[in-house]
Amino acid sequence: MSSSYGQSLKLSLFGQSHGEAIGITIDGLPAGMTIDMERLMAEMARRAPGQSALTTARKEPDAPEFLSGVLNGRTTGQPICAVIRNTNQRSRDYGDGVDLVRPGHADYTGHVRYFGFEDWRGGGSFSGRLTAPIVLAGALCSQWLEAQGVRIACHVQQLANVQDASFLSADPGADYSYMKRMHLPVLTAGLDEMMAAAAMEARKALDSVGGVLECMVTGLPAGLGAPFFDSVESQISHLLFSVPAVKGVEFGEGFGFAGLRGSQANDAFRMEDGRVVTVTNHSGGVNGGITNGMPVIFRCVIRPTPSIAQKQQTVSLRTGENAETEIKGRHDPCILPRAVPVIEAVTAIAVMDLWKERAACLR
Amino acid sequence: MSSSYGQSLKLSLFGQSHGEAIGITIDGLPAGMTIDMERLMAEMARRAPGQSALTTARKEPDAPEFLSGVLNGRTTGQPICAVIRNTNQRSRDYGDGVDLVRPGHADYTGHVRYFGFEDWRGGGSFSGRLTAPIVLAGALCSQWLEAQGVRIACHVQQLANVQDASFLSADPGADYSYMKRMHLPVLTAGLDEMMAAAAMEARKALDSVGGVLECMVTGLPAGLGAPFFDSVESQISHLLFSVPAVKGVEFGEGFGFAGLRGSQANDAFRMEDGRVVTVTNHSGGVNGGITNGMPVIFRCVIRPTPSIAQKQQTVSLRTGENAETEIKGRHDPCILPRAVPVIEAVTAIAVMDLWKERAACLR
Amino acid sequence: MSSSYGQSLKLSLFGQSHGEAIGITIDGLPAGMTIDMERLMAEMARRAPGQSALTTARKEPDAPEFLSGVLNGRTTGQPICAVIRNTNQRSRDYGDGVDLVRPGHADYTGHVRYFGFEDWRGGGSFSGRLTAPIVLAGALCSQWLEAQGVRIACHVQQLANVQDASFLSADPGADYSYMKRMHLPVLTAGLDEMMAAAAMEARKALDSVGGVLECMVTGLPAGLGAPFFDSVESQISHLLFSVPAVKGVEFGEGFGFAGLRGSQANDAFRMEDGRVVTVTNHSGGVNGGITNGMPVIFRCVIRPTPSIAQKQQTVSLRTGENAETEIKGRHDPCILPRAVPVIEAVTAIAVMDLWKERAACLR
Amino acid sequence: MSSSYGQSLKLSLFGQSHGEAIGITIDGLPAGMTIDMERLMAEMARRAPGQSALTTARKEPDAPEFLSGVLNGRTTGQPICAVIRNTNQRSRDYGDGVDLVRPGHADYTGHVRYFGFEDWRGGGSFSGRLTAPIVLAGALCSQWLEAQGVRIACHVQQLANVQDASFLSADPGADYSYMKRMHLPVLTAGLDEMMAAAAMEARKALDSVGGVLECMVTGLPAGLGAPFFDSVESQISHLLFSVPAVKGVEFGEGFGFAGLRGSQANDAFRMEDGRVVTVTNHSGGVNGGITNGMPVIFRCVIRPTPSIAQKQQTVSLRTGENAETEIKGRHDPCILPRAVPVIEAVTAIAVMDLWKERAACLR
Repeated sequence: MSSSYGQSLKLSLFGQSHGEAIGITIDGLPAGMTIDMERLMAEMARRAPGQSALTTARKEPDAPEFLSGVLNGRTTGQPICAVIRNTNQRSRDYGDGVDLVRPGHADYTGHVRYFGFEDWRGGGSFSGRLTAPIVLAGALCSQWLEAQGVRIACHVQQLANVQDASFLSADPGADYSYMKRMHLPVLTAGLDEMMAAAAMEARKALDSVGGVLECMVTGLPAGLGAPFFDSVESQISHLLFSVPAVKGVEFGEGFGFAGLRGSQANDAFRMEDGRVVTVTNHSGGVNGGITNGMPVIFRCVIRPTPSIAQKQQTVSLRTGENAETEIKGRHDPCILPRAVPVIEAVTAIAVMDLWKERAACLR
Repeated sequence: MSSSYGQSLKLSLFGQSHGEAIGITIDGLPAGMTIDMERLMAEMARRAPGQSALTTARKEPDAPEFLSGVLNGRTTGQPICAVIRNTNQRSRDYGDGVDLVRPGHADYTGHVRYFGFEDWRGGGSFSGRLTAPIVLAGALCSQWLEAQGVRIACHVQQLANVQDASFLSADPGADYSYMKRMHLPVLTAGLDEMMAAAAMEARKALDSVGGVLECMVTGLPAGLGAPFFDSVESQISHLLFSVPAVKGVEFGEGFGFAGLRGSQANDAFRMEDGRVVTVTNHSGGVNGGITNGMPVIFRCVIRPTPSIAQKQQTVSLRTGENAETEIKGRHDPCILPRAVPVIEAVTAIAVMDLWKERAACLR
Repeated sequence: MSSSYGQSLKLSLFGQSHGEAIGITIDGLPAGMTIDMERLMAEMARRAPGQSALTTARKEPDAPEFLSGVLNGRTTGQPICAVIRNTNQRSRDYGDGVDLVRPGHADYTGHVRYFGFEDWRGGGSFSGRLTAPIVLAGALCSQWLEAQGVRIACHVQQLANVQDASFLSADPGADYSYMKRMHLPVLTAGLDEMMAAAAMEARKALDSVGGVLECMVTGLPAGLGAPFFDSVESQISHLLFSVPAVKGVEFGEGFGFAGLRGSQANDAFRMEDGRVVTVTNHSGGVNGGITNGMPVIFRCVIRPTPSIAQKQQTVSLRTGENAETEIKGRHDPCILPRAVPVIEAVTAIAVMDLWKERAACLR
Repeated sequence: MSSSYGQSLKLSLFGQSHGEAIGITIDGLPAGMTIDMERLMAEMARRAPGQSALTTARKEPDAPEFLSGVLNGRTTGQPICAVIRNTNQRSRDYGDGVDLVRPGHADYTGHVRYFGFEDWRGGGSFSGRLTAPIVLAGALCSQWLEAQGVRIACHVQQLANVQDASFLSADPGADYSYMKRMHLPVLTAGLDEMMAAAAMEARKALDSVGGVLECMVTGLPAGLGAPFFDSVESQISHLLFSVPAVKGVEFGEGFGFAGLRGSQANDAFRMEDGRVVTVTNHSGGVNGGITNGMPVIFRCVIRPTPSIAQKQQTVSLRTGENAETEIKGRHDPCILPRAVPVIEAVTAIAVMDLWKERAACLR
């Protein structure tokens, strides 16, 4: 069990896809922070469905209501609870219910986990819709982090078999804010169109595609994190793996380390303008679980959307027999564009929690 | 911050490589469990150095002393604290100290994190030696899990460029207990020798190699875990990334999902002997953060040991200038054999914590 | 910091008295529990203002909306979020705002704690109104506990100088459910009228009164709790002291132990119907932090309501000078009747958390 | 379950009275703090038995060994684990074992809680001996707090029927460090002798006495703590009730509030040297769960030692029949002198945790 996260910054997530509302409570944000509501809504919009042919056509306003913790546009330092009403529930589309469990989804595991009492409608507590309040929480953290000079950039490093370059070989000092305005943000100009084409192709085949997102956090001080259980990698990965569809996470060279020798993998140190830096950044900005002041770089894989318009083999929980199912409704052939702001959000949350932990280290 | 882990099962790790002792406190093990001390010591021995030419020649007895929580060979249900004395500290070998920070190590980040007061000798709190008490804790969890029918197997899926087969295409019902007796456990007979040769080659070149470990947990019931923050993947990866040298974690097809379509990636359900199973196991036994009753399969990458016998570029913390360093002492050209029991241990800890969480779900 | 509580059962409280809404998220309730909404509303009504001349005349509907975790009147096992809209905000009554901090209130400490950004209106996050969602959470726990045979009774053991008998000398097997129907529940018939008279007298004097509430929990099994940090007393008192106005907590003989000798204070054991019981219950049902199967009995003191209609000395935060303040609006001369369901609620929450912790103790 | 405590400052306690050792791990102390080992040992000595006729004659050296987290006499910022060997185990004295459960002790509840597998020897995990590592942890916190100007004083406010004055009416600016040098620290000169006489009288009667300890913390800034679940009172009481024998806790006027009116109970504010202070301190330095900058004052009751040299009625767990027991060995007729440093220690721990939480409140 649980829908809560965090040590210094605490989140409590709630809601089901087809219940009354979804939402989140965030405790531990600084008091007196002015919330830029326009930018917050822009982040929410990036995650919302219906932005292009790649994603579902449903239109949900997703306008959050702040129930607490905000006064005159500023945080009060007290818990912020924000809720998003579920207004566009087309339960008919999900009429088959929990009987025929959908492959790749959590229908079956949720049924076992909650002894058959789960709210199964539209994915219930497992729905990707729950990432909306996470984006909201992340946007609040991002605004605070940006004021400290921290920047988070995320691009589609792979979609189906189209591969982009990596932040590992990009200039960390460049301005990547343009990525927030791209539907499929990429480092290499033009690749987004090839990616979109690959996704449309899958869609035509009544199928879906997956991919890899790469994230870079710049402006972090050295010294965040801890050895062992609260390593930077432990905390970031904990949140990344909370995002539905994420099935792999790697830092720096990641799985590429398997083919490197120590002499190739080590990042030599060097003085630069009176600061300690590393010549390369194979480690992705983390040594021994602690930031070293270089950009924190990681990738996560997003599995192809399990909702596809083909017939699939499954079982009937009612009859206990083999069966076939066909998922109705419109679904994203490619969730990556909508996953980008979610990955940025959990990154912001993890980093801010690490920052607060660090602040509590008295001298 | 912290050296503690767990919700239902709580660990508290302590110690520095060259301090008095290292150890761990484990709270939440069932009362009345008979500890098989011989098997526990066998697990500790697998992690200990000096087992072959691949690993360091230091001989440390690593005999743990149980200070509490055990009476007449059985757990009392109260916290178990076990300590391991540091008897073989050759501080001379580390004489250069924290001045010349070693590339790939945590000397620099630890120095920043602890404001220069850290115990830097031999890696201090960051030393791989701290995995000894983790193996001890994991061995205790494993013994309990085995009594419930759970089995954990781990093999070297890749070492340098030598690649083994995957559990994803192996028979989950087979007996993999032989792996515990292999120095480099593999699925494909003979590959271990090729791996050993690759490691020895690196050693000759005064270098080191990395690789990938793959783990399979069988016998788990469906229903462990939770959506979002306490997903099975979140909790297992949190602990995996606590292990020094782990820089990537993937479940099921992992990063391979990026190139698959939904129709290839989904695991169809089927009834088998009255039980719900999946025909394939691309998801690695987890849907929506919850176990589905199939084997839980994941891989993690181990970076090449950063301690190599070559000159490396670094900085002097004392002078604030560029410098060269050469790491003295004997070091493992390949840490993988010793990492295997550590990965098994954190897996056992994570799984037992999930199991206990589940047990607290009243009806 | 924090508005969250619990280990196995997790609460997250949010809201300010004059914000949009107040509410709570409860994670960890069993799946499939039928909620008796009528009884839940009855508990909420007991806490609501305006029930008699003793309490404020404001009428707030306090009807909670369940946003998540409930389907067809049953818990789904997923987090329950319930919110209560703030509909009756008469901000005029609080016009002086945070300038003249009210004695006995948290205006000043909240101002310092939140750096001047707190929502000060009507007590903000400190308002007694926040106990409404706590009563709601407690009512849900109570319904589950009752199904296990646990009963929680609470009476006014003292109001001003009128003193009632104690559960310590009452029959634990009697039916105390009548207490829920009394405005001032007492053990000794007629005393409630004397208490009401004492409160009315204070009111006439533009003053307020305090008192002591006593609580008894029957039907608990032996074995809940733990020595030291998670003792039954630690966990119950933690929650009791979370309730505004509670300034003291004692178990069994409590402060009376100071005048007893060991021979008088010890509870002798005896077999009764094959069960171990104690002849007396001076310890209040807890030995070494663990329930012994006897009724758990404790008392807590409720300070007199700080909102009184007299002029009081204070300071102006704006001018930094001494000043006088007079609290406008209608306030309770005696909060005890409304505190009773709150104390019962936190007791139910603490007990259920203990029960769940116990359930996670595998064998 | 658990033997761990804390949010920002984390403790993990372990050990049984007659096991190998007892100890504690403390995570979160600042790096670079010089430990005054002499003063630390002086605190340990105050808690140790054998100091006067009032306490047991056993002589235990109680010299802690620091296994980690300390280098050259300074904290490294990493977890400190300290252990105390159990060298003087006279198991014969406890020969009757867990068969005849001792009234007032945790023999019975521990037996149920741990399913009969507990280490029952000499009280096992429940032994007052476990307070030795708590005193050690508290002494470390105290040293840090003192460097910030915080002072903690504790006196015996009542022993049997001898009553001392209260800090509520004492000068908070006076120097109470003399109390650390008194066996029975009191505010009123000479009272300690009357208290000692009362304890000796009980001893002659083969009995024991209880009492009340009062504690004052000065030098705290306003703004520590939070409303509701993490109130100052919640956190301090949580730790106080972890100490064996504590059965009641009250802040400021405590249970005396029951007889006061609001106009008497409220603390008027006043400016003094440019600071906000309160004219009186009925609230004991806490409003709405947050420190107000005035001295934090509280009392806790210590029940009479349950180990008395008289025959007592009990049951035999082996036969399931009524029986008599007589506790052998030497025991304290009055535990109060030894409880004083324990109460001071948990106070220091709670206050430092609150301080660290506050430090994490970014702006």
